Amino acid sequence: MMIRLAKREDLPAIHALVRDLAIYEKAEKEFVASLEDYYRDFDCGIFDTLVAEVQGEIVGMALYYMAYSTWKGRMLYLEDFVVKASMRGRGIGEKLFRAFLAEAEKKGCRLVKWQVLDWNEPAIRFYKKFGALIEEEWLNGKIFLSS
Amino acid sequence: MMIRLAKREDLPAIHALVRDLAIYEKAEKEFVASLEDYYRDFDCGIFDTLVAEVQGEIVGMALYYMAYSTWKGRMLYLEDFVVKASMRGRGIGEKLFRAFLAEAEKKGCRLVKWQVLDWNEPAIRFYKKFGALIEEEWLNGKIFLSS
Repeated sequence: MMIRLAKREDLPAIHALVRDLAIYEKAEKEFVASLEDYYRDFDCGIFDTLVAEVQGEIVGMALYYMAYSTWKGRMLYLEDFVVKASMRGRGIGEKLFRAFLAEAEKKGCRLVKWQVLDWNEPAIRFYKKFGALIEEEWLNGKIFLSS
Repeated sequence: MMIRLAKREDLPAIHALVRDLAIYEKAEKEFVASLEDYYRDFDCGIFDTLVAEVQGEIVGMALYYMAYSTWKGRMLYLEDFVVKASMRGRGIGEKLFRAFLAEAEKKGCRLVKWQVLDWNEPAIRFYKKFGALIEEEWLNGKIFLSS
């Protein structure tokens, strides 16, 4: 098993991992970002991804971008973090998350941030093993745009 | 009153607005990002800011960066949004927020996202006027790094 930074050629596999999860959550209609969007936005440097590869197949990924905290400074934001269902329980998620933390250190970030659903106890336990602070008092605001 | 994109020279005023709020919240020790950090990270293009200027003074700001939703695509993230206490009630926040939405449209974003504290009813009411979705089910995870 190898953890490495994604290249452009990995985007179809990354997009497929996201789609599989959307189908599993019966929310495929909500998944509107196309592979072409991924190519264009990756080429613009909007996000980066770490992938876990087993025998040439991408079985997990951590997708992130540089964000900014006005109080702390540079912050790496982990937007999506997936390990294929059939490949769980082998420490792949832990290795991906550690590689993500190492990327954040390398980029001079003062913190990393992400979100987790409040009912997802196994994920919350996973993050707490790394000393994560889990905050309950913030709500997300979102407005969808027509473009 | 004028809303415009911040220039490098505006960073001291932006940093001061953040510091004032940190002092008001009795959390000045938590505010560790220096003006030098702001200069360096602005120069790297990590964030942009819209400022509200009244008679040459910056009285409000909306600081944001490009983020990415694996399901939706480009997303503009509003990290900090401040109007000076003495200047509230004049529609400055509304004009700043509308300018932020316009920036997001211009950049081809499919959505905008931000966070609001669960007890901050006036802010939640403000955002709902714009048709915002306020989500309760997500928790923030954070790990602070030593760098």
